[in-house]
Amino acid sequence: MTVEEQVNVINKESHDMSLCLSQEERKKGRGPLLVSQPLTPLKPKEAAKEAEESVIIMEDEEPAVEDASVTEEHSVTNPKKSESVESTSDYMSDTESEGGTVRKRKSSLTETELLAGSTVSDMEMTEEDERRLLEEVPSPARTTTSRTTTSAVVHRLSNVTMSDIEGTVRGRRSSGSSQGTTFTSGTVGSEKTKRRNDQRRRKKERERALEAARGVANRPSSESRISHTVGSKPTGSSKGELVRKLKETGAPDLDILSAVQELKHRKKALEEEIAKVAPKEPEFNRVKMEELLKRRFFFMQSFAIYGGVAGLFDLGPMGCAMKANILHEWRQFFILEEGMLEIDCPVLTPEPVLMASGHVERFSDFMVKDVKSGECFRLDHLIKANLEKISVDKKTDSSLKDECRDMLNKLDGMNVEEMTAILRRFAMKSPTTGSEVSDPCEFNLMFGTQIGPSGDHKGYLRPETAQGMFVNFKKLLEFNQGRLPFAAAQIGDAFRNEISPRSGLIRVREFTMAEIEHFCDPLDKSHPKFSSVSDVLLTLYSACDQMDGNPPKQIPIGEAVKSGLVANETLGYFIVRIYQFLIRVGVDPLRLRFRQHMSNEMAHYACDCWDAEIKTSYGWVECVGCADRSAFDLTQHSKASNTRLYAERKLAEPRTETRMTILPNKAVIGKTFQKDASVLIGKLRAMEQEEVRFLAKEMEVNGEAPVDLGRLGNAAKVFRVTKDMVSFKEAEEKVFVDEFVPSVIEPSFGIGRIMYSILEHNFRTREDDDLRGFFTLPPTIAPVKCSVLPLSGNDEFVPYIKQIRDSLRYAGVSHRVDDSSGSIGRRYARTDEIAIPFGVTVDFDTVNIKPPSVTLRERDSTQQVRIPIAELAETVRDLSDGKLSWKDVEGKYPKFEAQKSEEDRKKAKGEK
Amino acid sequence: MTVEEQVNVINKESHDMSLCLSQEERKKGRGPLLVSQPLTPLKPKEAAKEAEESVIIMEDEEPAVEDASVTEEHSVTNPKKSESVESTSDYMSDTESEGGTVRKRKSSLTETELLAGSTVSDMEMTEEDERRLLEEVPSPARTTTSRTTTSAVVHRLSNVTMSDIEGTVRGRRSSGSSQGTTFTSGTVGSEKTKRRNDQRRRKKERERALEAARGVANRPSSESRISHTVGSKPTGSSKGELVRKLKETGAPDLDILSAVQELKHRKKALEEEIAKVAPKEPEFNRVKMEELLKRRFFFMQSFAIYGGVAGLFDLGPMGCAMKANILHEWRQFFILEEGMLEIDCPVLTPEPVLMASGHVERFSDFMVKDVKSGECFRLDHLIKANLEKISVDKKTDSSLKDECRDMLNKLDGMNVEEMTAILRRFAMKSPTTGSEVSDPCEFNLMFGTQIGPSGDHKGYLRPETAQGMFVNFKKLLEFNQGRLPFAAAQIGDAFRNEISPRSGLIRVREFTMAEIEHFCDPLDKSHPKFSSVSDVLLTLYSACDQMDGNPPKQIPIGEAVKSGLVANETLGYFIVRIYQFLIRVGVDPLRLRFRQHMSNEMAHYACDCWDAEIKTSYGWVECVGCADRSAFDLTQHSKASNTRLYAERKLAEPRTETRMTILPNKAVIGKTFQKDASVLIGKLRAMEQEEVRFLAKEMEVNGEAPVDLGRLGNAAKVFRVTKDMVSFKEAEEKVFVDEFVPSVIEPSFGIGRIMYSILEHNFRTREDDDLRGFFTLPPTIAPVKCSVLPLSGNDEFVPYIKQIRDSLRYAGVSHRVDDSSGSIGRRYARTDEIAIPFGVTVDFDTVNIKPPSVTLRERDSTQQVRIPIAELAETVRDLSDGKLSWKDVEGKYPKFEAQKSEEDRKKAKGEK
Repeated sequence: MTVEEQVNVINKESHDMSLCLSQEERKKGRGPLLVSQPLTPLKPKEAAKEAEESVIIMEDEEPAVEDASVTEEHSVTNPKKSESVESTSDYMSDTESEGGTVRKRKSSLTETELLAGSTVSDMEMTEEDERRLLEEVPSPARTTTSRTTTSAVVHRLSNVTMSDIEGTVRGRRSSGSSQGTTFTSGTVGSEKTKRRNDQRRRKKERERALEAARGVANRPSSESRISHTVGSKPTGSSKGELVRKLKETGAPDLDILSAVQELKHRKKALEEEIAKVAPKEPEFNRVKMEELLKRRFFFMQSFAIYGGVAGLFDLGPMGCAMKANILHEWRQFFILEEGMLEIDCPVLTPEPVLMASGHVERFSDFMVKDVKSGECFRLDHLIKANLEKISVDKKTDSSLKDECRDMLNKLDGMNVEEMTAILRRFAMKSPTTGSEVSDPCEFNLMFGTQIGPSGDHKGYLRPETAQGMFVNFKKLLEFNQGRLPFAAAQIGDAFRNEISPRSGLIRVREFTMAEIEHFCDPLDKSHPKFSSVSDVLLTLYSACDQMDGNPPKQIPIGEAVKSGLVANETLGYFIVRIYQFLIRVGVDPLRLRFRQHMSNEMAHYACDCWDAEIKTSYGWVECVGCADRSAFDLTQHSKASNTRLYAERKLAEPRTETRMTILPNKAVIGKTFQKDASVLIGKLRAMEQEEVRFLAKEMEVNGEAPVDLGRLGNAAKVFRVTKDMVSFKEAEEKVFVDEFVPSVIEPSFGIGRIMYSILEHNFRTREDDDLRGFFTLPPTIAPVKCSVLPLSGNDEFVPYIKQIRDSLRYAGVSHRVDDSSGSIGRRYARTDEIAIPFGVTVDFDTVNIKPPSVTLRERDSTQQVRIPIAELAETVRDLSDGKLSWKDVEGKYPKFEAQKSEEDRKKAKGEK
Repeated sequence: MTVEEQVNVINKESHDMSLCLSQEERKKGRGPLLVSQPLTPLKPKEAAKEAEESVIIMEDEEPAVEDASVTEEHSVTNPKKSESVESTSDYMSDTESEGGTVRKRKSSLTETELLAGSTVSDMEMTEEDERRLLEEVPSPARTTTSRTTTSAVVHRLSNVTMSDIEGTVRGRRSSGSSQGTTFTSGTVGSEKTKRRNDQRRRKKERERALEAARGVANRPSSESRISHTVGSKPTGSSKGELVRKLKETGAPDLDILSAVQELKHRKKALEEEIAKVAPKEPEFNRVKMEELLKRRFFFMQSFAIYGGVAGLFDLGPMGCAMKANILHEWRQFFILEEGMLEIDCPVLTPEPVLMASGHVERFSDFMVKDVKSGECFRLDHLIKANLEKISVDKKTDSSLKDECRDMLNKLDGMNVEEMTAILRRFAMKSPTTGSEVSDPCEFNLMFGTQIGPSGDHKGYLRPETAQGMFVNFKKLLEFNQGRLPFAAAQIGDAFRNEISPRSGLIRVREFTMAEIEHFCDPLDKSHPKFSSVSDVLLTLYSACDQMDGNPPKQIPIGEAVKSGLVANETLGYFIVRIYQFLIRVGVDPLRLRFRQHMSNEMAHYACDCWDAEIKTSYGWVECVGCADRSAFDLTQHSKASNTRLYAERKLAEPRTETRMTILPNKAVIGKTFQKDASVLIGKLRAMEQEEVRFLAKEMEVNGEAPVDLGRLGNAAKVFRVTKDMVSFKEAEEKVFVDEFVPSVIEPSFGIGRIMYSILEHNFRTREDDDLRGFFTLPPTIAPVKCSVLPLSGNDEFVPYIKQIRDSLRYAGVSHRVDDSSGSIGRRYARTDEIAIPFGVTVDFDTVNIKPPSVTLRERDSTQQVRIPIAELAETVRDLSDGKLSWKDVEGKYPKFEAQKSEEDRKKAKGEK
């Protein structure tokens, strides 16, 4: 196959959805139910190796040229793609005239960047340039770009642009929703540009030195890796072709499976590559951020004075306020805005409920025990650690090393037998004591307890809040006057007894979730508001693209639903709402994508599932799931509780049906089954037509039939029902409605993970003070909205401080007074650390000049204005609510430079 | 003893605090730690008997005369009391001129009431009269009354008046805080008065008939019982005297105990009497209210489709929104207003933490098991049910009946041996199967679980949120820059595995708490804001008054702290804040009191403890606790975790001290204790001076000493430290600070109980429609703030509805549109049911007359005004936040009577 042909194949594949995985196939896939994907950290070395293996073209140091050529090929060889580009252009056509300059500047910028020998890390710098560019454009400007520049840049740019359309882009969050003004710190001088270029050069040199020091000189340079991943064709895609061919020709399952496995590994390697190319925060330093978070008590490990408990964290005053603000926003954004029905169910959940949901049986991980100390280890983690150790050991011969690496690659897809074989083959021991380890056993991740004193009622701490909404479906439907669709929502704590929690706030044993269950008619999953969001451009990482080793794509949700990539409008609508919410609370849109579950990770009943993944220093973290769970949950609970959880669809014309009814003989049943009789009678009466007819037939043939009551208490019960216990009646009935089990679409938010991601994305240091970090949290999310700093402890200041506090309190603005003796700069640095967005200084002018005024400072720009005290509280309130932008404030009030009193005093002193 | 002498004694006793129970004695009392008092329902029959026994004067049907005579005596024979009355008058003196008319009307009213032959239930009616009276008085009027009328009336009146001063009385909640306007429905005509008097007469007749039907004719009439309890001297008080005499003379403990027991029973009986006299909501119907709460899904039993779980409840959309609003108010009122440090700790708590707090050992109830079915019963509940059955059985002879009644009275004070004796004496059986029951065993009320997979780490679901704050003390102090006092706060769920949950939302297994831990210097428990609340009049039910059988008293908190009744300013300040919060969220101040813990129910370490009790149909329910827990908790955790939980007090002058230091010999200790060595060394270094000196002495004398490390993991560990492991150094040190363990003052709110009480207190029916109930919830707490009701489904209406919705959404006002076809009255009744305080009707005038306006209706008064759409959203927002009163709105906008369009149309039709 020539290079051209191969590219052709890739492109054709990646856009022909029908060839990839049909809905039917997806449904059949039996992935691990509800177990969230483990967060395996990126493995740069393996990735490098993977890249080495798959690089088949151009080990070139000139990425600009390479990129151009690759994308050139791309657009030539892929008719479908050009089509999509065209349609995007169509959609954007009205902006071409407005946004022309942007586009021009953009490409010239890209060229400059690339010709300057752009590296991965250099790309970060362009982000700021883009912002500057965008600021110069009259807004709202709808702009996008065709795929003629590097994808990374396209990715970033179109993201910003799309956000621009939405009015939600980070840098512009402060803008009033009705106003298109931008949030800029002024023009960028050539002086600054020069300095930045210098920094860039130095940084690059440092990186090269580091790379050499790490002994990875023989690795392909980052430039070539980018170009490879972004535009060219990894060999993995031929495997994709292979899988499909195998399926078409009806090859043995084993062959298909192994090919799929192989694909999965390619996908992983590719993901790592993409991660490397993706824009990164220039200088993110987790240690530094965590030091700050702990010092200012955003959070810390729980029960620290008792040695701490893994996987449990306390939120301090700052973390707590931030979480409360996120939840408040969530409530506003989802529950109030969409008229959802919020409920609040207990954490304690009786076993039968979680039996029905499948958690008791399947919500587990495998682990081994140290036979002496009893310490437990998660099986896959233990194997991974051991294989990694073996593969870098000097004594290991090279063929074994290769084998280990191969096993490591395949580990995630292995079943327990395969893992056990590896465990025993290498005689892996307990890492802490060196003792033998037990055979692997399954460990259910739910915390168990006993409800009530008798010890008979096993219960669990809920592993998700969803079940509370399912079991309340009937009551909720009634509350909604029998009408579908409607959504229930719940905010609450959930618990998972992780075997070995790690990754800080990302993997914990107790966490807050916010879940939505949208109940709708399975025949109509349209959404009335979908048209209002259909233009929103999202970064979608489809199952096909993952399988075929393609990068994520920018697709308007309308198109994604139309093409069938996203299963239906309601799912699509929620994906957009999730996106909008995350941006609003401070997630960087450039580090947010939606990844579709692949067939092997999606529950067998789910139609489609997309995870909102956020890029953090721990890698891409699943923070929100959004799944179409079909009718699975309600069906399960209907069966297990013998309660009909149905909705009704009115028929256009009433219909006549012959229905068979069971008439239970209460006397006989009562005598036979005693206290269980009523449950049995209930079950008989709740039976579906097919069940009734089956029973009637069985009675006729065998004189008896088993009736499965699911679980009664903790034991499964099947009753033998005999002919004398029931009779049957058949009659014609006029039917006015169709009954059906509603489908459920479930967006499910992990609040702690979102919170952590926001903190990472908003951690900054100032150019002039890189010792002190601070957080650029959106004002709505910031723990405290306003600081009040008196310049002096003088008595004259007191009444003004009081007036300001009272007015802020009346306006409902949370604030802190810092009357400590530190310099004003030092005090501002302290308030910046806890992300206080607005600062008020009460100075000598406040006291001396009427009407009294103060300075108001914005955290991110550090700009200040002079504002009358009488207008302060409302202004800060509106700024905090996002109803007013800082730009507006700057437009309205004079910029603050220096105190008049101070000047006068200096003058006076000078005169003396 | 003559009647007069006796009265003299009672009055002397009840006001001589020093004679009653000293702080010292209170501290010694060892009540059940942390176990909340069981909610035993009132027992009217026993109370009646109690009353019968203790009535020694006047079985008179003329209560007016009796009351007068009694209170006459009262004021004559009690110099202290007159003093306190005087001082109250002093305090109120400035209002005498303003409030003179009130007082006159009040006493004349009381006379009228009493002369008309007032009964207990009649007293309820006076409440409305009082309100009417107050409405006629120019406000703010500070009025109270001397104790020359019946206490019940005094109680009620002064309560209303005090609330008036506070500006927080229920009927006036809608008033703006800066404005003194009252919320009244206009003048009361004589027509109305006549109707009311008729109602009263009919009601009284009904009650007499009922009493006769119940065969309690030989019981003293309710009138005489009131007069007895309220103004005269129950014999129980002589017991109070007896107890004190016994103590003084050093009588055997057993005698004292039995006398105390007796007192407790008297107290109970009295409490029941008081409950009967206390104002009640005229027509509260729990069944009706619960029907409404369930139908509109405020709450329901959890997992209902699986048969439900006792003690677990789901909050539906309305309950959930109401709870969120209460918590929001709580956060504003306490955390923001007082600058508290909110934290958020996990539910999962490792055993050592709860071992240190005392919960593992002592947080339990006694129960027995059905030996066959294994069913469990709470021991005291089982005995109570059995004794009640025996005492009403016809076959039981009268002496046994008396004995049973006596045992029932004493049940609450019995220990497990006494209860077991009764259990066996009457051979009590399982109430469900009739089988034998086991011996009583203690059942710990905490839910246990395992943290982590090994099974080695026992954990519990926290039974309160407090411990999370104690273990974080160090970090919180650091956050507060080392300064005391400061308060931590936490809102979260707590869990108690009740043996037999009942009483609906009042006693549940999982509940939300909001707790505050105010850390302060034990030498200085003053509060800077105390002076701002010291005039607030509270209903205080002191331990002495409970012991002596006196009713609760109205006392300004300043006086209560000054006299030592309330232990200190900080405790007093929080009691007032609790009071203010409860009133603000909708608790009826007439059904709220603060009850002091008696010596036998207070934890031995507590200095003082007051419960905010709210009167509901379940009786007086403890909803908020407010305790001075001294240094107990921090001391316990210091010891158990070997961490110094101290604060520092700067010395005015540095001081020179000779300090002894331990120098551990690490080598020897390491060799001897291996992995435990570091813990031991830590312990040695953390030792107090006295411990160090003790150790040094032991070493000298014995060459070794035991060092107790508390619990390491789950096992208690004591190490034998020998001479070779440590050496000692003594040196002079300059000391600049004193170290001390801070005291903790803990207000602890049960959110669910408060919520239920609010619902009960605000449940109403309209005069013209007593089928439909509704809730007069304060707008801040109401689940939804505003309804929007279009009069027609006409297309013309759509843009106005949209405009209103958008503006309400922008203003952050939660709202519901009801465009169903029901009549407007019917639709309003539906919104009233879910307590929506404001309703907007879009009618034909909205469409036809420019600028467009709508009607705005207030729920409680059902009054409507006409308001321009442009001003609607802000008005409703300010009304909902309590920043605007309905009176203000009525003053600003024209009253709405009928639509112009409608009138025109009618006219037009008429003309046709």
